[in-house]
Amino acid sequence: MDMLWSGWGDPAAATPLPDPVTGLLRDLLGVTPRGTGPVALEEIDVPASPLGAEARRALLSAVGGQAEHVRTDAESRIRHTRGKSTSDLLRIRGGEVDDIPAAVVLPAGHDEVLAVLRACAAHGLTAVPFGGGTSVVGGLAPARRGAVVALDLRRLNALLAVDPVSRTATLQAGLRAPHAEALLAGHGFTLGHFPQSYEWATLGGFAATRSSGQASAGYGRFDDMVLGLTLATPEGTVETGRAPRSAAGPDLRQLLLGSEGAFGVITSVTVRVRPVPPARRYEGWRFPSFQEGADALRRLAQDGPRPTVLRLSDETETLVGLARPDAIGSAAARENAGCLAVVGFEGTEEDTAHRRDRAAAVLHEAGGAPLGEEPGEHWARGRYSAPYLRDALLDAGALAETLETAAFWSRLPELYAAVRNALTSTLTDAGTPPLVMCHISHVYENGASLYFTVVSAQGDDPLAHWTRAKHAANDAILAAGGTISHHHGVGADHRDWYAREAGPLAVDALRAVKRRLDPAGVLNPGVLLPAD
Amino acid sequence: MDMLWSGWGDPAAATPLPDPVTGLLRDLLGVTPRGTGPVALEEIDVPASPLGAEARRALLSAVGGQAEHVRTDAESRIRHTRGKSTSDLLRIRGGEVDDIPAAVVLPAGHDEVLAVLRACAAHGLTAVPFGGGTSVVGGLAPARRGAVVALDLRRLNALLAVDPVSRTATLQAGLRAPHAEALLAGHGFTLGHFPQSYEWATLGGFAATRSSGQASAGYGRFDDMVLGLTLATPEGTVETGRAPRSAAGPDLRQLLLGSEGAFGVITSVTVRVRPVPPARRYEGWRFPSFQEGADALRRLAQDGPRPTVLRLSDETETLVGLARPDAIGSAAARENAGCLAVVGFEGTEEDTAHRRDRAAAVLHEAGGAPLGEEPGEHWARGRYSAPYLRDALLDAGALAETLETAAFWSRLPELYAAVRNALTSTLTDAGTPPLVMCHISHVYENGASLYFTVVSAQGDDPLAHWTRAKHAANDAILAAGGTISHHHGVGADHRDWYAREAGPLAVDALRAVKRRLDPAGVLNPGVLLPAD
Repeated sequence: MDMLWSGWGDPAAATPLPDPVTGLLRDLLGVTPRGTGPVALEEIDVPASPLGAEARRALLSAVGGQAEHVRTDAESRIRHTRGKSTSDLLRIRGGEVDDIPAAVVLPAGHDEVLAVLRACAAHGLTAVPFGGGTSVVGGLAPARRGAVVALDLRRLNALLAVDPVSRTATLQAGLRAPHAEALLAGHGFTLGHFPQSYEWATLGGFAATRSSGQASAGYGRFDDMVLGLTLATPEGTVETGRAPRSAAGPDLRQLLLGSEGAFGVITSVTVRVRPVPPARRYEGWRFPSFQEGADALRRLAQDGPRPTVLRLSDETETLVGLARPDAIGSAAARENAGCLAVVGFEGTEEDTAHRRDRAAAVLHEAGGAPLGEEPGEHWARGRYSAPYLRDALLDAGALAETLETAAFWSRLPELYAAVRNALTSTLTDAGTPPLVMCHISHVYENGASLYFTVVSAQGDDPLAHWTRAKHAANDAILAAGGTISHHHGVGADHRDWYAREAGPLAVDALRAVKRRLDPAGVLNPGVLLPAD
Repeated sequence: MDMLWSGWGDPAAATPLPDPVTGLLRDLLGVTPRGTGPVALEEIDVPASPLGAEARRALLSAVGGQAEHVRTDAESRIRHTRGKSTSDLLRIRGGEVDDIPAAVVLPAGHDEVLAVLRACAAHGLTAVPFGGGTSVVGGLAPARRGAVVALDLRRLNALLAVDPVSRTATLQAGLRAPHAEALLAGHGFTLGHFPQSYEWATLGGFAATRSSGQASAGYGRFDDMVLGLTLATPEGTVETGRAPRSAAGPDLRQLLLGSEGAFGVITSVTVRVRPVPPARRYEGWRFPSFQEGADALRRLAQDGPRPTVLRLSDETETLVGLARPDAIGSAAARENAGCLAVVGFEGTEEDTAHRRDRAAAVLHEAGGAPLGEEPGEHWARGRYSAPYLRDALLDAGALAETLETAAFWSRLPELYAAVRNALTSTLTDAGTPPLVMCHISHVYENGASLYFTVVSAQGDDPLAHWTRAKHAANDAILAAGGTISHHHGVGADHRDWYAREAGPLAVDALRAVKRRLDPAGVLNPGVLLPAD
């Protein structure tokens, strides 16, 4: 099944906003319905593909000569135009396809990816590696230089190897996460990687963007899971990973993870897998304040026991009940006071029970009140639904977007205040006071992430409107000592702030790597690093 | 206190071999005393320093003008000649100082390090970052190109910051580990990093070489502990680490960790610290075979509970009792059968007891027999003494050296056999059949390290003799799927095998990084990467 071209997910799963939410938007934020639904796909004015005949022949030859693997029809190209940020959606909903790719190419394996990249280099084409197409940071929107080829990896979808002794698996990069989980489940294993994009995103995308899933407290980030990578570049192949860890030089895996298609195309990953856990228990807890809740999470992250899922909504998010989208605006949600935490455990029966009991003692002592399993299970059921809600909000005339950062624990209060203030003041000054919500969803011994959700009226020019607020938030993140992204990545949208965060010398060092692996600048120019 | 120039450690702590060991060497390996003690320091024929007057003035100016911080006396230079591999010791014991540095420079902080590097670039000097001087892989033996400056970091020895909320500390790179631990203990914290070089090595060296300590099962490797790095290069400063983890591009920390002084000089590290554990319990366990013991370690590493220290000697190492150097060759050691494991727990009283009891159940089920705390505590007392033993073995006419690798669990049996065979057959063919011992001392969910100790007679040309065996072991490691080093690093000694392991394109990418950060090739040429 293909993702909805103009929004998120399964087109059949879209649902309109519940009436109480519409009321809330109107009363709180002044949002009025504007009939701003997307244009019809057939009505989009798609320019003819600029792919030249020679380049097309070269691409065809790279993928074995079958025409269905070099697509230039309008629908295929529209479906590979940009990603799924709110800005991307605002543009595609309006039928704006000025940076539509010239062709969609579907190689069948590593060698065909190599051949496609060589063909791109030879014919002056730009290549955009395309997995699930779920980037929310402009990771699929390179600077334009010649015709753009969307390099769709969906045919790289095999489980290549399972090593049950070492508990590793090698999987091709184009596998969507649910498909990968199903293949691994056949061997009794799970990856344990469940980001909000889970239903659509691919393993290669997880690796290229340093994805972090909702069970990161227990299973780690995707970059913790990767033990080996195969990278196809215009200059050849890089293979990494002979051991879990090594002292043989810099960790090349960690140089390729997060390279966002700018250094090469990740064609397979060898990952750590774990037995499918027989037991699971997710619970809700309530804390009087965000700070008290954050302190409780920190205690668990630092001294244990470590839950599998650990997240905490701030007062606003708890009040609105964003953790329970189906209850937003309902009487039940309005009664929410304080801050809701979800604390989940997975493992053996015995281990889960033991960790749960010890964690409960810590949470009690830290001021938490147990709410039982219902809020935890409820959160788990709705964990992939928020992006659908965004489509409904856009339909209703609201602007909705998320952004995230991370910092050391001692910095979090200042970072939280700085980003909230930046978003609130920018949007309020522009005449559309927002609702700004936040949660902590990834914890470490030494710090945590902050994930913000912003909803406001769209204003007259929603794209420019949001861009101003986003830039203010980016500036605030850097000023307050946060990183520009904890798990969405850099893309084109964060590139300039990433350069400030990393500093000019480090950026130059990464550009030197790119020039060596991609001397013609074929791969995602302007994504991650400035285009040469 | 300075380290013994001709060997390891505190000169006052040197002890001769116990008589039973001398007997064992003679009877088993044909080692006969050769009176091969080191020459006297004063007798070494030290060439005049080739440092030119202008270069000296530039270096002096870089370190504030004080002559004591630019040393060209013979003893200072001898003490900064190469590292502490057995090959290094064989050469220095013989008075061979052909690659002695021209000067030893002692900058006082990051800015002075920058100034020294700029002076080196301007005057065609080579700079060798020098921490504890404990490299055993030729990390202090660059290719020669102009006069060599040993850049001794001992004056960078401050604790710069402690953040008790985030549990982080920022320490200068020249701090020796015991000094760093003492400073942290003043705040109730420990780093938990205890490699065999602990008493002499520095934090910057740990970072530059991806060190892993004996408590890595509980505290992680040094590269797990590093949250931020400051790097001085001839082109300026790189600073990394705004959050424990980030999706903002490749992990630059992991590009600098393991860079072995070839990309720059690490001047400070921000590290994760933990509360000093109130409880500790180290135990011995015996397994019938190395494979059964390894399976038991794997079960703990994969399913928990995770000990703080976890190591297992193979049958030969257990028989010889290398884990108990003071008992080598004694009647007690000769009775050792099977394979000795040391399993240690640190933490709170409750947590330590709980993990210990659960681990004991796993070890029992896996075929282990408990030996009580005595063997564990005995191991802990002697944990830093093996390098002293090597000096005594060299004095006695034996050759003794160690090497190590790591791989995924399923590969370990083949890797173990391959390296043993390579060492045994090479040395046997050369007329000096060796004793080859091995232990697992670092475990991961997906694999483990193998650490080999080799003892044989020295043969007529010990250096050439050992070099042949070492090269055979390196080839065997790569052929069997291991990494060329798990925690000693690449240096000059492993460089060619590292290039095979990483592959030409990855090596070129790292060379591109080096050229950007060190365009004049000042830093450790030929260490890690081929000299340009």
